[in-house]
Amino acid sequence: MENAVSTRLEHDSLGSKTVDADAYYGIQTLRARDNFQLTGVPLHHYPRLVVALAMVKKACCQANGELGGLGPDLVNAISAACDDIIDGQLHDQFLVDMVQGGAGTSTNMNANEVIANRALELLGHERGSYDKLHPNNHVNLSQSTNDVYPTAIKLAIQLSCPELISALERISETLAVKAEEFSGVLKLGRTQLQDAVPMTLGQEFNACRTTLQEDISRLHEVAVLGREINLGATAIGTGINTDSRYADLAVAKLSAIAGMPFTLAPDLIEATSDTGAFVMLSGVLRRIAIKLSKFCNDLRLLSSGPRGGFGEINLPPVQPGSSIMPGKVNPVIPEAVNQVAYRVMGNDLSVSMAAEAGQLQLNAMEPLIVYSLLDSIQLMTRAIDMLEERCIRGISANTDHCLAVMNNSMALITALSPHLGYELTSKLAKQALETEASVRDLILENGIMSAEALDDILKPEKMLQPITATQP
Amino acid sequence: MENAVSTRLEHDSLGSKTVDADAYYGIQTLRARDNFQLTGVPLHHYPRLVVALAMVKKACCQANGELGGLGPDLVNAISAACDDIIDGQLHDQFLVDMVQGGAGTSTNMNANEVIANRALELLGHERGSYDKLHPNNHVNLSQSTNDVYPTAIKLAIQLSCPELISALERISETLAVKAEEFSGVLKLGRTQLQDAVPMTLGQEFNACRTTLQEDISRLHEVAVLGREINLGATAIGTGINTDSRYADLAVAKLSAIAGMPFTLAPDLIEATSDTGAFVMLSGVLRRIAIKLSKFCNDLRLLSSGPRGGFGEINLPPVQPGSSIMPGKVNPVIPEAVNQVAYRVMGNDLSVSMAAEAGQLQLNAMEPLIVYSLLDSIQLMTRAIDMLEERCIRGISANTDHCLAVMNNSMALITALSPHLGYELTSKLAKQALETEASVRDLILENGIMSAEALDDILKPEKMLQPITATQP
Amino acid sequence: MENAVSTRLEHDSLGSKTVDADAYYGIQTLRARDNFQLTGVPLHHYPRLVVALAMVKKACCQANGELGGLGPDLVNAISAACDDIIDGQLHDQFLVDMVQGGAGTSTNMNANEVIANRALELLGHERGSYDKLHPNNHVNLSQSTNDVYPTAIKLAIQLSCPELISALERISETLAVKAEEFSGVLKLGRTQLQDAVPMTLGQEFNACRTTLQEDISRLHEVAVLGREINLGATAIGTGINTDSRYADLAVAKLSAIAGMPFTLAPDLIEATSDTGAFVMLSGVLRRIAIKLSKFCNDLRLLSSGPRGGFGEINLPPVQPGSSIMPGKVNPVIPEAVNQVAYRVMGNDLSVSMAAEAGQLQLNAMEPLIVYSLLDSIQLMTRAIDMLEERCIRGISANTDHCLAVMNNSMALITALSPHLGYELTSKLAKQALETEASVRDLILENGIMSAEALDDILKPEKMLQPITATQP
Amino acid sequence: MENAVSTRLEHDSLGSKTVDADAYYGIQTLRARDNFQLTGVPLHHYPRLVVALAMVKKACCQANGELGGLGPDLVNAISAACDDIIDGQLHDQFLVDMVQGGAGTSTNMNANEVIANRALELLGHERGSYDKLHPNNHVNLSQSTNDVYPTAIKLAIQLSCPELISALERISETLAVKAEEFSGVLKLGRTQLQDAVPMTLGQEFNACRTTLQEDISRLHEVAVLGREINLGATAIGTGINTDSRYADLAVAKLSAIAGMPFTLAPDLIEATSDTGAFVMLSGVLRRIAIKLSKFCNDLRLLSSGPRGGFGEINLPPVQPGSSIMPGKVNPVIPEAVNQVAYRVMGNDLSVSMAAEAGQLQLNAMEPLIVYSLLDSIQLMTRAIDMLEERCIRGISANTDHCLAVMNNSMALITALSPHLGYELTSKLAKQALETEASVRDLILENGIMSAEALDDILKPEKMLQPITATQP
Repeated sequence: MENAVSTRLEHDSLGSKTVDADAYYGIQTLRARDNFQLTGVPLHHYPRLVVALAMVKKACCQANGELGGLGPDLVNAISAACDDIIDGQLHDQFLVDMVQGGAGTSTNMNANEVIANRALELLGHERGSYDKLHPNNHVNLSQSTNDVYPTAIKLAIQLSCPELISALERISETLAVKAEEFSGVLKLGRTQLQDAVPMTLGQEFNACRTTLQEDISRLHEVAVLGREINLGATAIGTGINTDSRYADLAVAKLSAIAGMPFTLAPDLIEATSDTGAFVMLSGVLRRIAIKLSKFCNDLRLLSSGPRGGFGEINLPPVQPGSSIMPGKVNPVIPEAVNQVAYRVMGNDLSVSMAAEAGQLQLNAMEPLIVYSLLDSIQLMTRAIDMLEERCIRGISANTDHCLAVMNNSMALITALSPHLGYELTSKLAKQALETEASVRDLILENGIMSAEALDDILKPEKMLQPITATQP
Repeated sequence: MENAVSTRLEHDSLGSKTVDADAYYGIQTLRARDNFQLTGVPLHHYPRLVVALAMVKKACCQANGELGGLGPDLVNAISAACDDIIDGQLHDQFLVDMVQGGAGTSTNMNANEVIANRALELLGHERGSYDKLHPNNHVNLSQSTNDVYPTAIKLAIQLSCPELISALERISETLAVKAEEFSGVLKLGRTQLQDAVPMTLGQEFNACRTTLQEDISRLHEVAVLGREINLGATAIGTGINTDSRYADLAVAKLSAIAGMPFTLAPDLIEATSDTGAFVMLSGVLRRIAIKLSKFCNDLRLLSSGPRGGFGEINLPPVQPGSSIMPGKVNPVIPEAVNQVAYRVMGNDLSVSMAAEAGQLQLNAMEPLIVYSLLDSIQLMTRAIDMLEERCIRGISANTDHCLAVMNNSMALITALSPHLGYELTSKLAKQALETEASVRDLILENGIMSAEALDDILKPEKMLQPITATQP
Repeated sequence: MENAVSTRLEHDSLGSKTVDADAYYGIQTLRARDNFQLTGVPLHHYPRLVVALAMVKKACCQANGELGGLGPDLVNAISAACDDIIDGQLHDQFLVDMVQGGAGTSTNMNANEVIANRALELLGHERGSYDKLHPNNHVNLSQSTNDVYPTAIKLAIQLSCPELISALERISETLAVKAEEFSGVLKLGRTQLQDAVPMTLGQEFNACRTTLQEDISRLHEVAVLGREINLGATAIGTGINTDSRYADLAVAKLSAIAGMPFTLAPDLIEATSDTGAFVMLSGVLRRIAIKLSKFCNDLRLLSSGPRGGFGEINLPPVQPGSSIMPGKVNPVIPEAVNQVAYRVMGNDLSVSMAAEAGQLQLNAMEPLIVYSLLDSIQLMTRAIDMLEERCIRGISANTDHCLAVMNNSMALITALSPHLGYELTSKLAKQALETEASVRDLILENGIMSAEALDDILKPEKMLQPITATQP
Repeated sequence: MENAVSTRLEHDSLGSKTVDADAYYGIQTLRARDNFQLTGVPLHHYPRLVVALAMVKKACCQANGELGGLGPDLVNAISAACDDIIDGQLHDQFLVDMVQGGAGTSTNMNANEVIANRALELLGHERGSYDKLHPNNHVNLSQSTNDVYPTAIKLAIQLSCPELISALERISETLAVKAEEFSGVLKLGRTQLQDAVPMTLGQEFNACRTTLQEDISRLHEVAVLGREINLGATAIGTGINTDSRYADLAVAKLSAIAGMPFTLAPDLIEATSDTGAFVMLSGVLRRIAIKLSKFCNDLRLLSSGPRGGFGEINLPPVQPGSSIMPGKVNPVIPEAVNQVAYRVMGNDLSVSMAAEAGQLQLNAMEPLIVYSLLDSIQLMTRAIDMLEERCIRGISANTDHCLAVMNNSMALITALSPHLGYELTSKLAKQALETEASVRDLILENGIMSAEALDDILKPEKMLQPITATQP
């Protein structure tokens, strides 16, 4: 008896199912939840995706209202329900697994059902009384999963990228601070792990800053690509069951609601099955991952030791390093970033394979694409913040050791090449290595150059940049 | 004041930290939890990994006890604490992120701390009184993360694979049932999506069964590879700080506890940095994913339509297919399996990259390797069960349509080639296609063969196997 | 004796070696050829790479001349030697394997030696008389492999991309022609391989045209990224051993010689180790590969049959399809494109891994990066031309079959949903499928709508676009 | 006129074409050559593939002869033609591109045509007189590309793997020699690039030997998997157009000809579309690549310097390292191996994608699979030989430096932990690092242990293995 009070019966074209009375979702959400028990990660794990769905639904509702397809009462109720979700409410009702079959239909229906029932509630009706306000006929009016879902994905990405960009900007600033701090630390530059020519530690940190700045630009560029949407395309891009004014209007509404300019794709058939923008974004995320991984490899290399390695920098210790070796401290933060980078590259492969698996008028694998992209954005954002806060900020330089290594190396010999020729200098380098003598001594002993001339050339500071041209 | 009651202060080589009084974990777990906020997936998300850690710890403790390194009281307390964890208790105390720097040290220390505090409790001491029983000195005695962690990973995999194998066996059985059910359904075989020669639908389902059976064998084989462990290797494989009898004894203890035979790697230096067994396992998981994806592609193809596609089989409808197209039912289950397969392939790439990133005496990226492998095993197990329960069981055949398509095709002409020669048969095939005539009619019209001879050759049943040899 | 005439002896810092007297390359090329016998693909397999090297060398030579580092005689001789190579001569002298250690040093030295010996020849000297004109001291003056090689790679890519873009433009035009040709072919649109709503075959071909047009834009954009170079950076980006005016001048010279604007990277340290532009380009190549593969999958699907598949289009037969099945014709051209796409994606992974392997001030894996990129560009160009010439041009439509399939399907029912509601229409669809009746008949039988109203809604032509709004 | 003499006219179901009179290949080869101008790598680039094709053809011919399908004259002629090819003749006639559409039909027809024309020649007939001996009716009797081609691929792999295994054995032996040579070189072991505990350089080289030995075992195992073939399956596995005794007989003949035992797959439908064995092999090749890459990374790390890096070993110089930095010598051989490894991993991805793209009764992407596998085997074989000959053999140790670094490090402190406890030892380690004092001095100064006790524990030799247990 009590049970009867706390549930309602819903039905769809496949039959009927009992839904919790206080659930905002309905029968189709329930079916999808039961069908797809895979990752265990529900839609609401990515709140921006839920918000994006609500924004798109609201935009469509307003367009329908303006074109007369929906009456003002329904428009108001649906819009208010969307606003609740945009404000962060009801997110727990979005419980379908991120990885799902059906090209996102379950996600779309989850949104349609939650919005319908919240709107019914606002109108004073019981949940499930779809004769008054229907998930498909009203909330989904003029829509298909095939235009609504990719649009919501693209918006969710737009809402997620700024956080990654902020993290990149924060780490860039910290790198700039460290570059300044280390601008006077003379050290050996290395190519192919072999001693090369002098540089400063500041230049090394600044190079990472520069490269991440470029990534910020790339992210902004692909973001723009992601603002071309297919809203109004409905099932396959022909716009079936829409008013001819609807698509432009819905896009305009969405731009206003989301506060960013979206444009309607010129070829909606193409836009409905195309995943090119996702592949591009994944490519940029991978690029950032590659760069971060390379930089973390460098940090681990430069801090190797403390006594048996490069030992040029010290990473701040954040936890004891070993359960058996007392006092050992490991570069755990860069190591974690490396692993995040490898996962991002794995996600990138998943995106590629899913994109290639599109068929005819649709790509049914988009749920995996969006899951992979949002996972990569989130992981990378967190990894960058971790790297910035728990590692880079606290790095210190072993200035004396850097200088000693540089002076002890052959790093200075390259500067002699323009004066003595490549062949003689090569011979001197070889001899110095074999005899463990210094190049300077060899040159003086053999009377090749005077001490004054030599000292003038061999100033490391002069090697940090091109030779200032003497005006003729 | 109250706060003072509900916390305890712990310290390590980096300083001290307040820990919840009722926490079994300690300061190092806390540091790691704070350091690595990445995937949000804690260790206890994979209960078999937690159990495996406890089994390994118990084995080491028993070996230490037998060799006199630990007194009986400590042995009993530590063993009992491990048993609790093996029995499923205290799992929520394993809260470090699956992706972590430090090559698993945080996982190992999480285990050491929880076991130490539970053992202290069993001995009647307060948690944190490490002077009586120490996470490193006692729980971790004769151990390093670098032997304990890979051993626990390998055990966790051993404990996880059977579930995947069971799922494969279940689906194999169902495929066998369907193969039997469809053994009389004559249909067109296709190569390169072009009409080829006759077969039965039963043969098609049986082929999938056969191929998954082979995968079960491959999984068993790689499982055996994964039973070679480096327990006793300690820090780098030299066995520093262990008794010379310890390694063999610890391996024997683990075999007894886990109920499966482990062997000690003959070269512990190699075994400590090697990730070859993980790469092999990942390769087999990828292979299964590839096959499942191919089979699901076939299911989607064979069920395409209902009227405008191949339409040979019907997948059971599990949810309405479209928010806009009424009555549409989509192959959502196979689509979800495809996506799982692409994720497994992404995980496989992550494993490869992490494996390649090993350096000198260790691979610091093992946390990502184990996360990727356990994720793939779990996802694939769930996906196979979903496919078996919600799709394959309920597939029905459109027997008449299958037969009609076969009869209407050129599928029979190949059988004429041995009788009429490749060239004449090719000509007939071309002519039949152009004139939309049947090959049979063409042959009779042109008096190439008698109707009787022709009918004898063109029986589809005869084409399902080699021609029975007439004994000379 | 004769042997003495036909060889010369060259030496370097490691010793001496006999070189063929008529060889333009020298000892270092010879060493590299012997060291790296891997792919068997020599540098001259990619003529644009050889030309690019010569252009860069000429630009540096001219800059050195203008700054007084090289006398006019040497400038003229070196420039003339470079011009010969730019004109296509001496390419066979570039014989080092594309895959090589040394971060491109062997490629650079191959160029230095060939240019030096050709210049010596032009000056009337014997080859090998490096005291008069030296590969390092003169040809390589103010240069390091680490700035010259990446610059030459980037230029080689600039020279190679236009060919790919041309191929994309050719195929786009042919797709436009076919889209026009098929604009009247009404057919079933499909999502998730299930019957969806009507469209035209022309729209389908046009969608591919649209998507490749976008790729052309993406290629142009990444090309621009690739014009930022590090010429003048020398060994690690500090510009050691160059005049402070040199870098800008050399970049300007190169822009003039190559006929396209290059810019000097603002941070030469970063630019010397960065491979971001290559990763981006590889990402765009992968994107094109994914799209082509998806389109070829569609072509194979739409042409499946001839009688037991979709059978909507016919691909032109280009070779007999089977050694056993007479008359079989296979979609061999799209299949070949699919395989090229998978190879491009394999190359893309190689690029990613090579990029991640950069260390400190250099990426030593650039030879693999350039090999992978040039291979992908060449393969894709050829594959697109093959697809355009041997497949797309000759595709014909089975217009009657397309129409019949559409009319026989449920494709029209979606248009009824706005009039009858989602639920009733779903029910009708289900009933129609089960009874094999037509939806039209069901509606009329049940008196749901009049025949006139129904016929007006069910015109396929009306479903190809949104409903024209009636002005209020 | 002359032209007329030097060509012949051939025809197939698509029309006719002029073939060079002295060509052994025929019209279908010609069509395929023209259709697929992609990689530029012809079949004969892999002689073992050509030999394998001939062996398979000979086996089928003999089986047909024994079953009465072919008369003795034809059997003899076809067998003799195959023998010529097995002996290395006529390979230049195999000119179709390795990457081709048609699932290998062009490769099979290339073989059929060359064998037919060579057999005709041996019988005294003109080439092209296919009425006497026909490529399809006779050479291809009882065969389809779909059983012959995968069988030939598998045989080609069997013929190619031994070379890779030999290379692995050679390098293993050299590593064993070096392990012995370096068995007395005491050095610092490192985990996570941080100083860990003592080991010998010999142990480090021996670990690589061990790991490659395991790979040899894995290669042998997957080779066995590759000996299950589908010969006799013909078009789709039903064995259509074969005698029921044929399959077993053909397999037996092939085993005899190839000198290795092949077995007939139990489910020929499955075996005809399955690519699992290729995916497994690719996985093992990738595993070897990963290990080689890891080892080469280690070599580059250990030889970093010469003065500003780890500097523990010297790689033999094989070419000058820099065009600008005199005397620089780079680890060019390991770098080249790294790149080969990344290419093998790219090939592996191509194999995966091609395998996943199989459809229904066939995988049309097998040409890319075999190309990728043979390329990887060849590249890896060459890379291993290069590494062995030009690098590992000549490596020397900086014994004094290794010892000094170890003694200067904290590597010895771990051995104190069992005696002093983890916490006190951690404190000492920290103090030592901060004050740059030695741990030994700190312990003595603080009177923690006597000098004798300390010296006994701190003998590095004792740390290279477990502590010998004292019998009770």
